Amino acid sequence: MKAIADVCVIPIGIGVSVSKEVTACERIFAEAGLKSRLHAYGTNIEGEWDDVMAAIKRCHETLHGMGVARISTNIRIGTRTDRAQTMDDKIRSVEEKLKG
Amino acid sequence: MKAIADVCVIPIGIGVSVSKEVTACERIFAEAGLKSRLHAYGTNIEGEWDDVMAAIKRCHETLHGMGVARISTNIRIGTRTDRAQTMDDKIRSVEEKLKG
Amino acid sequence: MKAIADVCVIPIGIGVSVSKEVTACERIFAEAGLKSRLHAYGTNIEGEWDDVMAAIKRCHETLHGMGVARISTNIRIGTRTDRAQTMDDKIRSVEEKLKG
Amino acid sequence: MKAIADVCVIPIGIGVSVSKEVTACERIFAEAGLKSRLHAYGTNIEGEWDDVMAAIKRCHETLHGMGVARISTNIRIGTRTDRAQTMDDKIRSVEEKLKG
Repeated sequence: MKAIADVCVIPIGIGVSVSKEVTACERIFAEAGLKSRLHAYGTNIEGEWDDVMAAIKRCHETLHGMGVARISTNIRIGTRTDRAQTMDDKIRSVEEKLKG
Repeated sequence: MKAIADVCVIPIGIGVSVSKEVTACERIFAEAGLKSRLHAYGTNIEGEWDDVMAAIKRCHETLHGMGVARISTNIRIGTRTDRAQTMDDKIRSVEEKLKG
Repeated sequence: MKAIADVCVIPIGIGVSVSKEVTACERIFAEAGLKSRLHAYGTNIEGEWDDVMAAIKRCHETLHGMGVARISTNIRIGTRTDRAQTMDDKIRSVEEKLKG
Repeated sequence: MKAIADVCVIPIGIGVSVSKEVTACERIFAEAGLKSRLHAYGTNIEGEWDDVMAAIKRCHETLHGMGVARISTNIRIGTRTDRAQTMDDKIRSVEEKLKG
């Protein structure tokens, strides 16, 4: 089952800056071979459901290993059976209508 | 890794009423032996990370099997290593302060 | 415009325990006269869109005033025009199907 | 109060394709003079809290006016008092660490 997800991992209790932890998650998504794209409030990820979810779990394990005691993650995940659709398809579909 | 999650599954394109699909998800959480509690905008789930995520995946598979072509799910999932904490602990901790 | 919302306010950088801040938000929802119900990963709120959103803004202002330097909030908010629906209606609709 | 938000508006009950409605929201963010950037699972928005929230409300009103009977929106919204931070700052901060 293919999925497009958006993930926002929030380390709690480590201070106001969380970019070191977000960077660690980006590396995990890249190493997992997932197509991913960072934005200002999370990361888009495209891949098999199991691979996407395994990478998110690894973010929690890795951050806890780095000393983060508490993590709260928000995930949006979408699947569809009517047709294949990539992250780029979703954006293109809106951008074409914006021009039209 | 124990997790507390909150899941809101949205079937898209099937009409305005989604309670049949939400009910199917509730049954999946119960059959998975997960501690879960429905609220007005999702369901709290407590359990092992893998069990929680497997149940959410099963919601997508089951709803697609029921003819829902597109699903968008929002998940909040939290883990902590400093201490064990249940859903009831989280609520009690706030309710005590409200009385205090 | 009536709305049903679910709000999860996460104070960042203040330590692992956030129940004092969650309690402050609960008080704000109650003082605003909104129908609200705490669960293990957020709070359901029912009311006019503007009142719900004003209360959430007040949570941010109040927590910043308490010394929280950074806050990340996740909101689910739903509106519908086909019929009036309360938080209790949403839950009842699923619970009846679970029994059926 | 400045905010960085991420908004995912889901029209329910209109069919599987939602790009027309997402496009209408993009136009609303642009007309509101907000800095916004579409991604594959939502839109980043930067601006004053009230302006961001007014634009999201307008999305609901506009989509209902287009005949969408039910809408469920997921919002992440962050504020901080320790320093000013833009959407670009957030991304740059992670990208620099990825190179480092």
